[in-house]
Formats: sequence, C-alpha cells, structure tokens
Amino acid sequence: MAPSLHPTVDNGLTKGRENFAGGKLYCHCSNDKVEVTLAGDTLHSHLCGCSKCWRPEGSLFSMVAVIPKDNVKITANGQKLKIIDESAAIQRNACKECGVHMFGRIVNPHPFKGLDFVHTELSDEKGWQEPQFAAFVSSIIEAGHDPKDMDNVRSKLKDVGLETYDVLSPALMDLIATYTAQQAGKLPSKL
Amino acid sequence: MAPSLHPTVDNGLTKGRENFAGGKLYCHCSNDKVEVTLAGDTLHSHLCGCSKCWRPEGSLFSMVAVIPKDNVKITANGQKLKIIDESAAIQRNACKECGVHMFGRIVNPHPFKGLDFVHTELSDEKGWQEPQFAAFVSSIIEAGHDPKDMDNVRSKLKDVGLETYDVLSPALMDLIATYTAQQAGKLPSKL
Repeated sequence: MAPSLHPTVDNGLTKGRENFAGGKLYCHCSNDKVEVTLAGDTLHSHLCGCSKCWRPEGSLFSMVAVIPKDNVKITANGQKLKIIDESAAIQRNACKECGVHMFGRIVNPHPFKGLDFVHTELSDEKGWQEPQFAAFVSSIIEAGHDPKDMDNVRSKLKDVGLETYDVLSPALMDLIATYTAQQAGKLPSKL
Repeated sequence: MAPSLHPTVDNGLTKGRENFAGGKLYCHCSNDKVEVTLAGDTLHSHLCGCSKCWRPEGSLFSMVAVIPKDNVKITANGQKLKIIDESAAIQRNACKECGVHMFGRIVNPHPFKGLDFVHTELSDEKGWQEPQFAAFVSSIIEAGHDPKDMDNVRSKLKDVGLETYDVLSPALMDLIATYTAQQAGKLPSKL
C-alpha cells in the first residue's frame, strides 16, 4: 500500500468555507484534552515535508497554517502543555501526554513573528482553509523516504491542485527575503 | 529601463549544441588573461539569484553550471587566481585583478563534491548548455531588489522557458536531501 501523504490529500482536497469563524483544537488524549480556541480562520495553510512539525501517524507530510497569535487562546488543560525546544525559532507547545503540537509561537525577531502555527485537523469543525501548496517536499527524503518515489509524490500533490516547493511558496519566500533585506539595511524599513 | 535579469534571458534563450566539446574561459583583464579550459560541456546550467557568484555588471542573476573537476584545467596565468573565501562550501577561484570568478571548487564533504562551478559566458565559444531553470529567485530581494517587481521577474523568466525556484531545482534538492539522509543513516549509502 502506498504511504499516506496526508489525509487531506489522500482523499482529495475539500475547500474551506468563506468567512469561516474558527473553532477549537483538541489534543489526542482521551481525557482532560488540551483545548485551544482559534478566533477565526487560518492563513497560508500548507502541507509541509520538514520533520519538525506534528503530523498524523503514518503521514509523510504535516498540515500547518498560521493565525495571528491574538486569535489563539488556551481554553482548557493548559497545564499539560510544554515547549518542545525553547531554542527553536518556532516554540512548539505540545501536550506532554499525547505529544500532539497545539500551537507553535515565535518569540524572537522573525519575519513571521506575531503568527502562530497550528494544525486545524485537530478540530472537529469543518470549513478551515484548505492547504494552498506543499512546502519542503524534498525534505521527506531526509526522514528516509525513497528518493525514487519523489516524482510520484510530486505528481500526487499536483493532481489534487497543490503546487510543490522545496522551501516555502514564492510569496512567503519573498516576505522572508524582504525582512532579511530590511534587517541588513538593503531595503528601507517601510516599503 | 528595466534592469537586466541576465544577458542570456534579456535577449531570449539560445539552445546549446548537442555533443558540444567544451572550450576556454577567460577572465576580463585586457592582458595576461587567466585561461581555464573545460574539456566538455557543462551540466545543470542555471541562473542564480544568490549574491555569492560572479555576474556581469548590472545583472540581477548570475549564470552558473557544473562540470566534473577533472574536466577543468588552468591553462594560462593561474598565478593571478586567488580563493575568495577558503571557508565557503564552494571555493571561488577569482582573478585577483579583474575579480571574475574562473571556477568554484568544493574541497570538503558535500553532495556536489567533484563538480566545479563555472560561468560559460566567459567563453567565446557558442554551444554551451543553456540555462535549464532559475534558482534562488527570491534571494535577489536580499540584495535590495524591489519585492514588488518579483511577479514581473518570475514572469520574464518563465516567458523564456525557465522554471523558477527559490532554492535549487527539485532534482538537485532531492540529491542534496538524499546525501543528507545517507550521512545521517536514514537511507542506505548505496541506493
């Protein structure tokens, strides 16, 4: 059986709903679930092949999106959260018991500071923004995926309408480069 | 006037010749030119937006390709060469007088070790492999290019038939990821 790329892709993409109002994310514990409430839809949802983010068991890709951090509130059992790596650019707040990442927050200067990283599949609600592209595709090889299968992986992603990138999308890469140029004084801080 | 992306693109792409036999590269000095002889055509020729490689004055992109290092010989005035940064992964051997990079060599373990990086526009011969894609496109912003011009830049590149990437091409990214996985023991050393 072919491995799962991600449940969102394996069964075909379902579009999100416009003006979706957000909802709650739950960790995978059977009791005393950590609950995080998102006050609105997410942005820049995408599949990601990097190995750092939480993903469903057996999936080659994670699905991750961002949301302004003021729209993210821990609404139950926050005492079960711990930061996996305080030194990482994105501080992933995971449930100590089931290991699911509830949100990733950036605390140091970074082009995406102010945006939290979340996995909307942890919600029972339907209507979240669907993935817009697939990022860091070649990185699944680094976790041991067979390089000979990559044409197949990229084809499947494109078949469901996801453009594939080995970094982030051009729009996001341009944002990062602009931030870098501004920090280095190569571009004015106001554009 | 719009800035030059690169002379190869500004005037439209000219295809290389099959079984092209190679030729000589010359630095830009008027006298005692450094001469490097390439015994064969190059591979993976591409435009590159990173800021490290030599490019013609006024070009937003460099054009760079690889060739097995055994096919690269310094055939005149090698005493004028110096390595720009011994600690860089690619040791760029440049003419001390005119500054042109004659070849870049990898001496430490690296997925592309054994391949030298060269700029075939330094040759008078016609027939070198034409660029196959454009790499590190978003990086031109880091050097101060206006982010608002990026749609235009990517369109122009695509118009002449060059796919655009913000890292290397998928084939090369897969090679790098495979090497990384092998080094980390995630994939067998022989595939």
